[in-house]
Amino acid sequence: MTDAEILRHIDLTLLKAASSWADVQKLCDEGVRYKTASVCIPPSYVKPVFETYGEKIPVCTVLGFPLGYSLSSAKVLEAEEALKAGAAELDMVINIGDVKNGYYDKVLAEIKAIKKTAGDKILKVIVETCYLTREEKIRMCEIVTNAGADYIKTSTGLGPAGATLEDILLFKEHIGPGVKMKAAGGVRTREEMAAYLEAGCDRIGTSSISVLTNS
Amino acid sequence: MTDAEILRHIDLTLLKAASSWADVQKLCDEGVRYKTASVCIPPSYVKPVFETYGEKIPVCTVLGFPLGYSLSSAKVLEAEEALKAGAAELDMVINIGDVKNGYYDKVLAEIKAIKKTAGDKILKVIVETCYLTREEKIRMCEIVTNAGADYIKTSTGLGPAGATLEDILLFKEHIGPGVKMKAAGGVRTREEMAAYLEAGCDRIGTSSISVLTNS
Repeated sequence: MTDAEILRHIDLTLLKAASSWADVQKLCDEGVRYKTASVCIPPSYVKPVFETYGEKIPVCTVLGFPLGYSLSSAKVLEAEEALKAGAAELDMVINIGDVKNGYYDKVLAEIKAIKKTAGDKILKVIVETCYLTREEKIRMCEIVTNAGADYIKTSTGLGPAGATLEDILLFKEHIGPGVKMKAAGGVRTREEMAAYLEAGCDRIGTSSISVLTNS
Repeated sequence: MTDAEILRHIDLTLLKAASSWADVQKLCDEGVRYKTASVCIPPSYVKPVFETYGEKIPVCTVLGFPLGYSLSSAKVLEAEEALKAGAAELDMVINIGDVKNGYYDKVLAEIKAIKKTAGDKILKVIVETCYLTREEKIRMCEIVTNAGADYIKTSTGLGPAGATLEDILLFKEHIGPGVKMKAAGGVRTREEMAAYLEAGCDRIGTSSISVLTNS
């Protein structure tokens, strides 16, 4: 697998609380230069990024991030505003408390509502595996599939643990054919990136591609 | 200062991503029993908590939490929904990127818009001191005052650092007479709680009051 092949599966990500416009521009410049799949940035930067970079790189942003317990109505509004501002991809966090309470119908309804808003734009569903049991992960594979979302994504990168290959293999077994996989959280080395892609991931979220570009 | 005096200044807080309804009820039961100032819980639990506990304890929730970079429109919607569901207090996170970019007018306008929505309900403004310079902290004291918010609050408790007495003393020097102070993040011992209250804080956010109740 060449560096270029890996790079085109990378969501180059900057989701820190205190990022400045200069920080975001630096990331976007790098994403454009190295042809990553997207840049993943905070909601409040979608508009200026799209106005500055236009079609040069797909803009991804987050909904209900990172704790997932904001209301569905707030996540839907975030989706609407992001799309209006130029986002092409949306990474939402599920309500993990709803999973713990066994309210799977609510979890399904929320993802469906956001996918309806997203239309033909890409929706990735962060299930935050570090908090889930094996059974809950399997249920989430089914729900993400039934909701018509485009990707199941392991982690926010801000929880106590991130992606594992084991979870990706579990996802692969239980998602429907229309659902892709994204690994995020702690994926840093070239070897890890290649391993996740070889395991069947279509996207990798990472804040640094210096291992691929020597940049 | 007696335990009871400290307790009535505590926002008893559970804002973890994976809290179940049982976890939230346990917290609320404790808040009611020990007469804390409020219970501070995720947006998605405001409705069931208010339906279960009614006027037994004020319900506090969070907006744009914890990273602060969701859009103002999303924070306003979160405020509206929380108030409709029974929240009496709202703890919002400012957009720290806007501070870093020097967009203080935007920061002021956002707080004003949320205070307008909150009306006579309490609005606390989390400035997340761990990311701010001394000058930025002073500017935020002025902005929180000018926006008409009720409290300035140090921290989300999820950033790399929490409250410090030094920041509280700086706030005290620079906020207007109508603004109160809340310390949150890492305040755990009885001695620390008493010290923050003696320094002029009106509220303390903490996830555990076992040091006060032996519970």
